[in-house]
Amino acid sequence: MSSTTSSPRLVTVAACQLGPVHHADSRQDVLKRMLLLLEQAAQQGAKLAVFPELAFTTFFPRYLLDEADLDQYFDVEDPSKSGIEQSPNVKPLFDRASALGIDVYVGYAERSIQKDGTHIDYNSSVYYSANAKKIVGKYRKVHLPGTVEPRTEPGAVQQLEKRYFRPGDLGFPAFRAPGLVEGALKSSGQYTAAQSAGKGDPIIGMLICNDRRWAEAWRVYGLQGMEILCCGYNTTAFPTTASGHQLDLTPEAAEEMVMLHHKLSCQGNSYMNACFSINVAKTGAEDGNPLVGGTIIVHPLGHIIKEAQTKDDELVLATIDLADCHRPKSTVFAFEKQRRPEHYHPILDQTGVIEPDLL
Amino acid sequence: MSSTTSSPRLVTVAACQLGPVHHADSRQDVLKRMLLLLEQAAQQGAKLAVFPELAFTTFFPRYLLDEADLDQYFDVEDPSKSGIEQSPNVKPLFDRASALGIDVYVGYAERSIQKDGTHIDYNSSVYYSANAKKIVGKYRKVHLPGTVEPRTEPGAVQQLEKRYFRPGDLGFPAFRAPGLVEGALKSSGQYTAAQSAGKGDPIIGMLICNDRRWAEAWRVYGLQGMEILCCGYNTTAFPTTASGHQLDLTPEAAEEMVMLHHKLSCQGNSYMNACFSINVAKTGAEDGNPLVGGTIIVHPLGHIIKEAQTKDDELVLATIDLADCHRPKSTVFAFEKQRRPEHYHPILDQTGVIEPDLL
Repeated sequence: MSSTTSSPRLVTVAACQLGPVHHADSRQDVLKRMLLLLEQAAQQGAKLAVFPELAFTTFFPRYLLDEADLDQYFDVEDPSKSGIEQSPNVKPLFDRASALGIDVYVGYAERSIQKDGTHIDYNSSVYYSANAKKIVGKYRKVHLPGTVEPRTEPGAVQQLEKRYFRPGDLGFPAFRAPGLVEGALKSSGQYTAAQSAGKGDPIIGMLICNDRRWAEAWRVYGLQGMEILCCGYNTTAFPTTASGHQLDLTPEAAEEMVMLHHKLSCQGNSYMNACFSINVAKTGAEDGNPLVGGTIIVHPLGHIIKEAQTKDDELVLATIDLADCHRPKSTVFAFEKQRRPEHYHPILDQTGVIEPDLL
Repeated sequence: MSSTTSSPRLVTVAACQLGPVHHADSRQDVLKRMLLLLEQAAQQGAKLAVFPELAFTTFFPRYLLDEADLDQYFDVEDPSKSGIEQSPNVKPLFDRASALGIDVYVGYAERSIQKDGTHIDYNSSVYYSANAKKIVGKYRKVHLPGTVEPRTEPGAVQQLEKRYFRPGDLGFPAFRAPGLVEGALKSSGQYTAAQSAGKGDPIIGMLICNDRRWAEAWRVYGLQGMEILCCGYNTTAFPTTASGHQLDLTPEAAEEMVMLHHKLSCQGNSYMNACFSINVAKTGAEDGNPLVGGTIIVHPLGHIIKEAQTKDDELVLATIDLADCHRPKSTVFAFEKQRRPEHYHPILDQTGVIEPDLL
């Protein structure tokens, strides 16, 4: 926390849930839908708009695609030339956000051009600050689900993120959102450190989809004092076996289970890190492939403040008080008094399971 | 997991919830209540009985006590002489468990005699195996809540665990429960490693109360393949501020919040580690001091299998299938494929929060 007092630090945030994006939908059409949500969010006083994972296209890792097919889904970032903010598919979103004075979290497929001309692909998100008029946070998804090789069992459901993306290499870097709290300095080109401290700029963390099930990811952000976690997702509405088959459950029971896991992850980890979280779905049936909804804004005390009612484009707004992080961060989750890292070493020392000896 | 297949590994487990233990209640009376629950559990086919934290006495850390007052709450363990299993206050429980063929987890206040004759006190639990006829697991609470010095604000609620206990020094050691799974070898003095492997002896972890809110603790056990987590607790039915005052909530709203935090912790961490958990309350008003109930047995997929209905002595039984851990441990939570420890280093490198730089 920036503040040691509990004086209010109010900000209105908007989870911008997207309904299905079909294969045939043009990027222009999707961008139009996103701009409409952004306008509505700003009109209702929001200062932060959070969009889903891979927001601009259908969730393509469900398909086995060749290189040529894949290109259309990616935004190219060439550090020697330009970043995502210059992509013609994305720039209008940030331009409008800047004009409206609203920050944006958005997920996209990043094609990162290397010095030797080759590229590495990531499942990424950026945080655009309307006050700073630039991207102030970037994240590359660390916990990629699925497989590298397509599952070959007849009827198997594909999830090929491990094929199309490399695991993120940036870790979990929290950052401050300049001027996000209401009453902060607006539209200044000279936003200084002193102003940032004085205004209590919130500390933000970003995750993407499957990351939200990993307590380590939340904790690394929690250890940076995170007050707001932004997380977009595309989550299949049924659980599968290791070979990619749907479990023998009714669609309703399967979706109920997936929603429980989503909520336990978001609510449990928000509580255990005393932070707000804004968890935003791309949802509905994309060309017949069902994604769950469940866009939720969660309080640092773990309860859901606001939840989406549809599986379509929908704005979920809440005015949150960042001062609500203060009590849990200074009592039950005062890390400096309560944590015992001397007993946590297996978390770093090993990746997989090492079972205890037999009797 | 011991088994790589999904053939059933059934075991009936009993959460032995205790109602209030008042200051004036004798240890004999409490033991009698515990023995009654143990008998009932065994009669109904249970092979494991889980009792609360500090089960044998009232939750004394709510009082400021001098050394002489404190003595009565502790069980003395002198490694050169005898352990808790020889304490006259505890031995009848293990003797009966042995005769009934039922394992026991129980929490107690441990006074550990050192070589130089001084003592160190811990908030501990042990796991007694009826098949091995001995204690096969021991845990000392790592995450002690509360304060060392009494809170001095008028009307403050005391929680003096940090005063009376030292943080646990054993880490989070998982262990196997010999013969716990139904069909396993019973009552043999010659329980061998080969038998243990062949019978799929379950891997057990133990936590105590506040530990259950710490994802690191669960994960260290998860990294040992834990299939059942046992956790006893005494949880005050209202949240307090840093100065120990109750929040300005109705008693009903306060208890609802405490229960949400309890369930998010147990369900969220069971799900994220693909293990069963047996979470057992001492509950009701101890001399007017309210403790929450909420004894729950949780499935590795995160849902509650069975929940207590009262705030008194109550048996909560379930027959669980340890094979249910297999699918999540080999898919979404296949740690060796999914975890990325190279990005988790702050979890060990720092205890408290280090905020990101100002802009």
